[in-house]
Amino acid sequence: MIRTAILLLVLAGAALGAENWRDEGVIYLAHTPNAAMNPVPVHAVEIGHGFWYGRREANVERSIPTMFTLLDEHGIVENFRNTAAHNGKPHNGPLYTDSDLYKWMEAAAWSLQSHDDPALRKQLDSLTATIASAQEPSGYVNTYWSGARASERFTQMYRSHELYCLGHLLQAGIAYYRSTGNTALLDIGRKFADYLVADFGPTKRPLLTGHPELEMALVELYRTTGEKKYLGLAGYLLSGVETERLQLKPSQITYLFSGVPFTSRTALVGHAVRAMYASSGATDYYSETGDAAYRKTLDTLWADLTMRKMYITGGVGARAEGESFGAAYELPNDQAYGESCAAIGNMMWNFRLLQVTGEEKYADVMERALYNGVNSGMSLDGTLYCYRNPLASTGEKIRNPWYETTCCPPNLERVLASLPGYFYSTSKDGIWVHLYHNSKLDWHLEDGTGLKIEQQTEYPWKGDVTLEVTPEKAERFTLRLRIPEWAKNASVEVNGAKEAAPRAGSYAAITRSWKAGDRVTLDLPMETRALAANPRVESDYAKVAVARGPLIYCLEAPDQSAPVGDLEFAGLSEPFEKLDRPDLLQGVVVLEHKGAAYEPTLAETPLYLPWADAERRTARPVELNFIPYYAWANRGTNAMEVWVPLGLR
Amino acid sequence: MIRTAILLLVLAGAALGAENWRDEGVIYLAHTPNAAMNPVPVHAVEIGHGFWYGRREANVERSIPTMFTLLDEHGIVENFRNTAAHNGKPHNGPLYTDSDLYKWMEAAAWSLQSHDDPALRKQLDSLTATIASAQEPSGYVNTYWSGARASERFTQMYRSHELYCLGHLLQAGIAYYRSTGNTALLDIGRKFADYLVADFGPTKRPLLTGHPELEMALVELYRTTGEKKYLGLAGYLLSGVETERLQLKPSQITYLFSGVPFTSRTALVGHAVRAMYASSGATDYYSETGDAAYRKTLDTLWADLTMRKMYITGGVGARAEGESFGAAYELPNDQAYGESCAAIGNMMWNFRLLQVTGEEKYADVMERALYNGVNSGMSLDGTLYCYRNPLASTGEKIRNPWYETTCCPPNLERVLASLPGYFYSTSKDGIWVHLYHNSKLDWHLEDGTGLKIEQQTEYPWKGDVTLEVTPEKAERFTLRLRIPEWAKNASVEVNGAKEAAPRAGSYAAITRSWKAGDRVTLDLPMETRALAANPRVESDYAKVAVARGPLIYCLEAPDQSAPVGDLEFAGLSEPFEKLDRPDLLQGVVVLEHKGAAYEPTLAETPLYLPWADAERRTARPVELNFIPYYAWANRGTNAMEVWVPLGLR
Repeated sequence: MIRTAILLLVLAGAALGAENWRDEGVIYLAHTPNAAMNPVPVHAVEIGHGFWYGRREANVERSIPTMFTLLDEHGIVENFRNTAAHNGKPHNGPLYTDSDLYKWMEAAAWSLQSHDDPALRKQLDSLTATIASAQEPSGYVNTYWSGARASERFTQMYRSHELYCLGHLLQAGIAYYRSTGNTALLDIGRKFADYLVADFGPTKRPLLTGHPELEMALVELYRTTGEKKYLGLAGYLLSGVETERLQLKPSQITYLFSGVPFTSRTALVGHAVRAMYASSGATDYYSETGDAAYRKTLDTLWADLTMRKMYITGGVGARAEGESFGAAYELPNDQAYGESCAAIGNMMWNFRLLQVTGEEKYADVMERALYNGVNSGMSLDGTLYCYRNPLASTGEKIRNPWYETTCCPPNLERVLASLPGYFYSTSKDGIWVHLYHNSKLDWHLEDGTGLKIEQQTEYPWKGDVTLEVTPEKAERFTLRLRIPEWAKNASVEVNGAKEAAPRAGSYAAITRSWKAGDRVTLDLPMETRALAANPRVESDYAKVAVARGPLIYCLEAPDQSAPVGDLEFAGLSEPFEKLDRPDLLQGVVVLEHKGAAYEPTLAETPLYLPWADAERRTARPVELNFIPYYAWANRGTNAMEVWVPLGLR
Repeated sequence: MIRTAILLLVLAGAALGAENWRDEGVIYLAHTPNAAMNPVPVHAVEIGHGFWYGRREANVERSIPTMFTLLDEHGIVENFRNTAAHNGKPHNGPLYTDSDLYKWMEAAAWSLQSHDDPALRKQLDSLTATIASAQEPSGYVNTYWSGARASERFTQMYRSHELYCLGHLLQAGIAYYRSTGNTALLDIGRKFADYLVADFGPTKRPLLTGHPELEMALVELYRTTGEKKYLGLAGYLLSGVETERLQLKPSQITYLFSGVPFTSRTALVGHAVRAMYASSGATDYYSETGDAAYRKTLDTLWADLTMRKMYITGGVGARAEGESFGAAYELPNDQAYGESCAAIGNMMWNFRLLQVTGEEKYADVMERALYNGVNSGMSLDGTLYCYRNPLASTGEKIRNPWYETTCCPPNLERVLASLPGYFYSTSKDGIWVHLYHNSKLDWHLEDGTGLKIEQQTEYPWKGDVTLEVTPEKAERFTLRLRIPEWAKNASVEVNGAKEAAPRAGSYAAITRSWKAGDRVTLDLPMETRALAANPRVESDYAKVAVARGPLIYCLEAPDQSAPVGDLEFAGLSEPFEKLDRPDLLQGVVVLEHKGAAYEPTLAETPLYLPWADAERRTARPVELNFIPYYAWANRGTNAMEVWVPLGLR
């Protein structure tokens, strides 16, 4: 009934401003024809104590406020005031700084759904007014391409980031709308989008996203407003038909991951963030159009990602040069780029694929990236950020409060702020649980019946999860519990009665008449896993990565009794020891294993040796002490490694 | 007696034009105070049939002529004519093209000592006249920084390659002089050098080599002319005192390997060719000055090279980005850069260190680079060149006839043309043998006594070498035979009588009264060696490189029964089989070993797996067929790898 009402509003083009803003999640798929589910809104999930609690508190209390201060100090807000004043003052920072502020605003906006804060609303309203003052009557707004540079607009789209900034403006506007019902910020972006719709296209002036991002934002704008023209513009951008008109070079087409038809792509190449954002936007576009060519391309790219190009942390982008994907199996550890934004893009893409298909394998990638390659990006205290996320280090400084290109920090902030929106989705027949954490869901089924679910768990430190399911009234529906691919021998009980053994790498579907107080007990065995990479990965051969639940572990120098580079496993036959360390790194489970340390240190031994001599190298027994990867580099700059030599002696 | 005469000429500053040009080798150390030996001239060694014969024939018959045609077709010679004519025509090619022609001229000049060719002399004389016509009265000559760009001379030395081009001009001039006694080309370079000496220096205008090279050339010019001012200018360039006056950035100082005192360097960083050339020049400078700070720095850098940053092929420069050295132990195989010029630089540097110190370890590195990382750079037919020399490949095209930046092809040509000059050196007490090959030395001891040595050997395919030593008259002197570090259990006989067992990694010194017809028999056991890398090398852990004598081997696709990426050793306990294949790749020794090939192919298996599942992967027994690394990619584009997984099952 509620759904019908919304649908009518959408069809009437009048959705915006209506009360359905409260229903819309991180992405809003209630009317999407090719989606298996629709995520619940951010405010529907309250995250309780545990793994994410402290990180999210740090995000709201320190990351978001300190990042605004830094943005302001670097003149990023001033750029808008200068543009509005036409005062000719030089632009502060690189040409894409507007997007950094927008992304920060998006983070702040999402945070309101968990932590309402009138002062923050007021700050966002004031920033919105500042941005509005910089917008031209045409709708164009970009503080870099203004003043003397206004004549160069849309002439250097391969680098201009004009549409990239608009994408982030729209996403910020959508987030603020979905958190408050306030359309002021969204209206600014929409006006710019309307300008593009009016003046650009195959028979008008050519457009190129250059840095893909706007595709996602336009589809979401379509979902928010019901206006098909935005979907059409997204399709035009993805169609990549302007290669000739824009005289794009092959190297640009590779690097930009735009400029040729998305459906012509056969591999992940070029700038990793661009490729992930483009793939996210293409997934959104597919979900609304059902165009099979997109689905085929998405499948091909996803296979390339997961079979050949993804770090075990969910990080992507092997090369610093061009911040790009490497060749197949090119996954260096020490030199890994693994930009935080790229891991976030990977998470966003896989979240979309999950919503569209209902296939658990996408949730695995999403969770892998979230807990590891994304999570490593922000320091435990919430004030330092990684741009690169290497999987081994000899101790360089990787966490900084500010980067001249400060895309990653507010990106990390918006992920943490919107995290509750990734937990659950609804479908016509029930509800899906994607993530586990102490939490309370307060939402409803798609037929309108209220539904509360309270999770109690110490996930990811422990694998038992209790879900108290409380529908408003007894009702038959399906509860789908995600059983991660790593959770072999998981078990589910409902009110103490064992369900059929669920298959790892699937959603365990429990269809029954649910009534208030029903209690589901899920056990995801948290075995420590020793993992191997495909031997074609040059950097990981005969090395072991340690995982437990969704967490990838690493060796960091402060926990070891020998230099990290000298350590190896002493075989894998012995079990890992697990140690709760509430005192360490805001509380972690540490894993220990028998190992060996070369003596004398490998730093003093020759680069090349006959195997017989190499095998005579001596080592002493040591304990290998593993911490979760995300928590490294929180005790100063230290050597670290994820892939630990197996030990050959 | 001869020496005294030369010395007097040098002291009188009248060496140039005198007859000692016939005595000067690749570098000329007869009067160098801090050198253990002095290499014999190129013409003193005639290389007979065997390993290098065909390559050197191809160099003279195909490489040198076809490269000139390509240089000419690309307008590299025309640049000089245009400059001379002041016709305002645009410069052809990148800004350093002059150096490509000079390097080609150097190659052609050295080749005359083995293959005199009046037509080639005439061609070189004509080119010399063309270059002379482009030289300004000041001495300045550079076709890029002429015409409209003349006003920018010496204003962008961090990129201008002005001094780099002069360095190659001087080296070409020296080579032509040493081959013919003709000083015309050398005079052009000398005039430019005189201009620099006059107008630049600490109290005058500042200079920076930008791309080091001129340092070597200036010291050689000093050695050739006896004029101290050139040594002084080299010292000024190496002193790096102009950092502030030139406002050099830290990134430039790293990349350029110049701009700060050479003696302040503690590690090999930045552009690999620049670092190798700078180190070669610094070694030359040390040899003439004895400045202990240089020796200390050279030792530090050499340790960094050989302990942490050199490929097993003698290639250097891990990264494509900046064509640069990587971090310690960063030696990727598939992504290796290993520019041919950098391996040549490594060879040149180690040849210089050997001459200075007499320590065999430098000859090992020189030979490693020569037979592998340099040798791979030119196709067997002499018409295709590698810029990159990776140690693994999935089959990209790495050999091309021409590069827009065509530094490597003529560099490879000058190495092959001058190769006889690397075979022998003399010292006061006798003669040193560095390289083995069918060959005839016709030279003299430093006291003037004529000396012939005829080597008979099939090195590097076989390890027995017979040297017939024929002094002009019976005389007591020391014959030093290089015993490579890999040659364990080598033995030496003189006239059938066994000498004391020589130590691998040393020169076996045989001091006796030598008479005509004395016969030395050297046996260097050619065992196939399985080599391991330091486990800190991320890319080589638990992998085996195969070597035999000075040659590094590899697996190339055409010789295998399964995809190269699927192959591994089936342990190392079985011996290698050796197979003479005169029919293959112009004649090679092939090595075979028991191996295994994953089935199904690793291309179809997951990226990450639990170790237990990974260990259950199946493989079938196969034979691994190794060819010498230098010979790969001569049968089209193929997958290849040097470091082969040990096999863990």
